[in-house]
Amino acid sequence: MSELSFTLGELASHVQARLIGDADVVISGLGSLATARVGEISHLSSAGYRKYLANTQASAVIMKDADLQRGSGNARVVANPYLGFAKGSQLFAQLPELEVGVDPTARVHELAVIDPDAAVGPGVVVGADARVEAGVRLDANSVVGERCLIQRDALLMPHAVLYADVSLGARSIVHSGAVIGSDGFGFTPDESGRLQPIAQLGGVKVGADVSIGAGTSIDRGAITDTVIEDGVKIDNQVQIGHNCRIGAHSILCGCVGIAGSVTIGKHCVLAGGVGVGGDGEIELVDGVVLSAATVVLSSITEPGIYSGGVLHNATTRWKRNAIRFQELDRLNRRVATLEKLLRETMRDDDV
Amino acid sequence: MSELSFTLGELASHVQARLIGDADVVISGLGSLATARVGEISHLSSAGYRKYLANTQASAVIMKDADLQRGSGNARVVANPYLGFAKGSQLFAQLPELEVGVDPTARVHELAVIDPDAAVGPGVVVGADARVEAGVRLDANSVVGERCLIQRDALLMPHAVLYADVSLGARSIVHSGAVIGSDGFGFTPDESGRLQPIAQLGGVKVGADVSIGAGTSIDRGAITDTVIEDGVKIDNQVQIGHNCRIGAHSILCGCVGIAGSVTIGKHCVLAGGVGVGGDGEIELVDGVVLSAATVVLSSITEPGIYSGGVLHNATTRWKRNAIRFQELDRLNRRVATLEKLLRETMRDDDV
Amino acid sequence: MSELSFTLGELASHVQARLIGDADVVISGLGSLATARVGEISHLSSAGYRKYLANTQASAVIMKDADLQRGSGNARVVANPYLGFAKGSQLFAQLPELEVGVDPTARVHELAVIDPDAAVGPGVVVGADARVEAGVRLDANSVVGERCLIQRDALLMPHAVLYADVSLGARSIVHSGAVIGSDGFGFTPDESGRLQPIAQLGGVKVGADVSIGAGTSIDRGAITDTVIEDGVKIDNQVQIGHNCRIGAHSILCGCVGIAGSVTIGKHCVLAGGVGVGGDGEIELVDGVVLSAATVVLSSITEPGIYSGGVLHNATTRWKRNAIRFQELDRLNRRVATLEKLLRETMRDDDV
Repeated sequence: MSELSFTLGELASHVQARLIGDADVVISGLGSLATARVGEISHLSSAGYRKYLANTQASAVIMKDADLQRGSGNARVVANPYLGFAKGSQLFAQLPELEVGVDPTARVHELAVIDPDAAVGPGVVVGADARVEAGVRLDANSVVGERCLIQRDALLMPHAVLYADVSLGARSIVHSGAVIGSDGFGFTPDESGRLQPIAQLGGVKVGADVSIGAGTSIDRGAITDTVIEDGVKIDNQVQIGHNCRIGAHSILCGCVGIAGSVTIGKHCVLAGGVGVGGDGEIELVDGVVLSAATVVLSSITEPGIYSGGVLHNATTRWKRNAIRFQELDRLNRRVATLEKLLRETMRDDDV
Repeated sequence: MSELSFTLGELASHVQARLIGDADVVISGLGSLATARVGEISHLSSAGYRKYLANTQASAVIMKDADLQRGSGNARVVANPYLGFAKGSQLFAQLPELEVGVDPTARVHELAVIDPDAAVGPGVVVGADARVEAGVRLDANSVVGERCLIQRDALLMPHAVLYADVSLGARSIVHSGAVIGSDGFGFTPDESGRLQPIAQLGGVKVGADVSIGAGTSIDRGAITDTVIEDGVKIDNQVQIGHNCRIGAHSILCGCVGIAGSVTIGKHCVLAGGVGVGGDGEIELVDGVVLSAATVVLSSITEPGIYSGGVLHNATTRWKRNAIRFQELDRLNRRVATLEKLLRETMRDDDV
Repeated sequence: MSELSFTLGELASHVQARLIGDADVVISGLGSLATARVGEISHLSSAGYRKYLANTQASAVIMKDADLQRGSGNARVVANPYLGFAKGSQLFAQLPELEVGVDPTARVHELAVIDPDAAVGPGVVVGADARVEAGVRLDANSVVGERCLIQRDALLMPHAVLYADVSLGARSIVHSGAVIGSDGFGFTPDESGRLQPIAQLGGVKVGADVSIGAGTSIDRGAITDTVIEDGVKIDNQVQIGHNCRIGAHSILCGCVGIAGSVTIGKHCVLAGGVGVGGDGEIELVDGVVLSAATVVLSSITEPGIYSGGVLHNATTRWKRNAIRFQELDRLNRRVATLEKLLRETMRDDDV
């Protein structure tokens, strides 16, 4: 898609890395070591890829110092390879065109304040008292509720929706179909068994450099705000309940579901399909890693790697085991009985 | 966010509760007993919060009769505390501004009927033969398909989508990104292994006082309608397949997934991440509670609380146990063999 | 909803089936054998429904040759009953009205090419260099990014979003709220622990006759494309990560989550709530069936039916078993000890 290109010298300087080779080589794209073509830059991040180094067509390879003696005549960029590749890739990222200014089909409330350097796309709706700072892009048909604050260079992709009272930090991105600030889920039965809503009067505070994936929803707080701290990366189809706090630089992968009033620490990683929630308030300390599809129903007080769930199996075999799971406690007691009997038997034998 | 305020007398009267204290105190917000400020009302709903009662700054506390002898000089509102708090909170709820009438950027089909007391927001699209009753609000960019019926005071939040042939009951709310009436998922392979769709010709009937969360999807029926009965509360990211019936006043928490042709009884509670479905039609009777992440593959015929899944654990420990699960049936047989052998051994000993 | 009708002769000819009975009978709808009314056609696909055959009100029944001797005087259409029913149902499917041409409220970039036989609905936004072929329908408020290609007779339902560089094959349908081409989820920590994005420079290629459900998201590739092959059917709320390949004619039911770089073979079936992903690249061969809520963390190299998870149970009983699961490896060792002791005891007895 891209027609951008850079010299290797420009690229190495952007990555802040040492260059071994011709600084004038033109790099017009990125590639995997195995499949990269001439004019592309690649990276050697894991040992399993070393075998591709000798024959790669890549015009340059980002690698660490220790790998420098390997391989052939292409140029080398000496850096943390995957981080260098990430930074290099950002040079080639291209956002869709969106002109600065307010598209004539957008509907901006007269009490909203849009910085003249912001871009408000077609069909966008901005509510009263919202503030949109410089460099912000509100893409097609996105909606910004009343009293929202969208800070510098933040980005709403098409169809992102912010309810009222959401603040979005600088450089944060909200992907299409994501909804921030929807009502927290709180009801209590009345005398007749009908469910009465608890009005959700808080908002949502999203920090800087946060990414929020497609179709993800983050509820507003009941009284105080739901908080997503700086640098948090949230994938698609994630659900975050009211009054959660997600600690800085944590990663929430696709399909994660977090109930209300859960606190996740900083630098946590929740792999795909993880669920966290339970009775009362639950807290995960900093540095907790949860592997895919783990369900956590209680607080975790020590950093570390945690898992849950059951491995897949041929259905006939799984079924037999799953049925036995229903009697696992009884099995345990049967074993305890056997242990007792055998101990007695052996004692008798001794006598 | 709110600048609303009420006297304590007004509030007690709204909650239909007895007031002990000064009816003229002005209440401008709600707060938790531990953190409420002067001018706020709080509630004492669980024993764990009693310790905050003596020192709370709240100007009034909703509590039950039995707790009246506790605490200090603030005013008391005598009621079911959490229900009273819920009703009180509703006084402070504020919907975003939306003017009655049809926004000039909305596209309403000439055969649609919009009550003059309804509000149709910017970018909204309404199809032929749709009927929108008084007090309804269709917020920014929402879409109402052909032949839909939106009953009094119902509310579509921005970007809610109703396909054709959906009826939405009075006072129901559909949050942003929710889709109601999408095609049920029905395919059958033809002679060549290609999947032929079964056309989905039913609609969706949603009752009164229903809440449908952000990003939730509810499919239309194949022949007859999918039905959501009165008072059902559905959280975000929930999936409900075609021809389901969800019984009145049931609660479906976030990330619940329900396959096609499932019937859920009345006053059921499905906690977050629950899945229900299987071969053929599945039914859960009234009053079934499923705890978080439980998977139900067969009907449940007795009311009660049901659970499933596996607890989290440190990964190294989990892995050893998960591997043993794959041999659980064999373990069971090993224990049975031991029991038999030991019985025989002991019989021999007796002889 | 439908006012369409066909003669039984037309219907049998459409289904390419033999007709026994009056070809002039008017069929105006479809029904289940148990509840169909006069004027409707039904099908006898499973033995369990044979009991309804004698008294069904259906004017015609699709059944297989072997069932012909059963039942009463209604007309018969001899075919694979469920496939015949599917094909018959398609006659009654009606899309909402959408006029050919570009709605005046749509925003089409001057460098986009729209076939004069395509329909571009209200509020639709089409980016630069996009190409929209004949017979395509872009329904209300949908968004088509730059350089997208929408092939003949494809269909975007209201609020579907395609990011830049997505191609959608002929006759494919994207339901409301679905997002195709959102950024893949790739980050790596920099020296300070902040997460740097890997720019996602690939696109998404969706084949012909694909169905993509409401609220589903499919990420663009990091370098190369994410690929959905011909005839794949994807239900609602599904998440597909970057650089996945989903093989032709596979079925992904609701709430399935697939991590990045997963390859699913052809003719696979992933039931509701299935999760697939893990470290590195994972591959499922052709013909793999995964039952509901199964989590797959490693490749599957043999076709077959696989399952995972734990069955539901009354909570008190489940809890006892779930706690024992945490000690399953130890239980196994206890049994091994018992086996050893008993072997020794019996050997001693023999002596």
